Amino acid sequence: MLDDKQRALLDKPAFAKLVTLMPDGHPQATVMWYRRVDDTIRMMAPASALKSKNLDRDSRATVVVDDPDSGYNYVELRCQCEVVHDDAAARDDLHHIASRYIGDRAAEFVASLDDAPRVLFIFHPFRVQGQIRE
Amino acid sequence: MLDDKQRALLDKPAFAKLVTLMPDGHPQATVMWYRRVDDTIRMMAPASALKSKNLDRDSRATVVVDDPDSGYNYVELRCQCEVVHDDAAARDDLHHIASRYIGDRAAEFVASLDDAPRVLFIFHPFRVQGQIRE
Repeated sequence: MLDDKQRALLDKPAFAKLVTLMPDGHPQATVMWYRRVDDTIRMMAPASALKSKNLDRDSRATVVVDDPDSGYNYVELRCQCEVVHDDAAARDDLHHIASRYIGDRAAEFVASLDDAPRVLFIFHPFRVQGQIRE
Repeated sequence: MLDDKQRALLDKPAFAKLVTLMPDGHPQATVMWYRRVDDTIRMMAPASALKSKNLDRDSRATVVVDDPDSGYNYVELRCQCEVVHDDAAARDDLHHIASRYIGDRAAEFVASLDDAPRVLFIFHPFRVQGQIRE
């Protein structure tokens, strides 16, 4: 599904734009930390967040990651999202996700979160496109 | 609708992520040049582009702009899109849009485009949110 260039771009500490669908079908977008695991993308969020409620109701999502080193390079992944309602698994995954952005401070960051339940999003792309210039 | 911080972020030469809706309602996203005019956002595209066809059929769109100087800062604009099918107006506007990114080379860039008809998107936000830290 993903080629080597797309994997290399996704493995940078870039920011993902996560698009979910509101109840009326209008797209809603936020900027998120993420990590790639094989050909899936993982993110964590509070279970009560708007994006979580949207994905619980409608699993259709699109993830865009643009290259922090050149905004002309990007990958668009149209996905179905699996929402894992497992607070411990979500916090454990966040440790891996956060390490990409803040390195050794990830453990401290994860420990600093409040107790509100977290969910893990696993995005399964069914269509990948974009543009990666040399 | 937009506050001063949001306008300042939008006036940077950042890249917009434009989200449109596919016929089946799945979000589709691309990375775009744009410019702000008052509280609207303008972009140009070929009339035959997927995003143009999507917006002709369904005017619901969301635009996300994240700060090239800090990916933690972003603005999300949920919009209705007015698609102006006027090739001359679209090319004229592109000159202004491109100048934000490539300065004096904008005229040359616009002149280099092929003859395929262009359209101008004017995005009217009805809800603006995001995060801008100091």
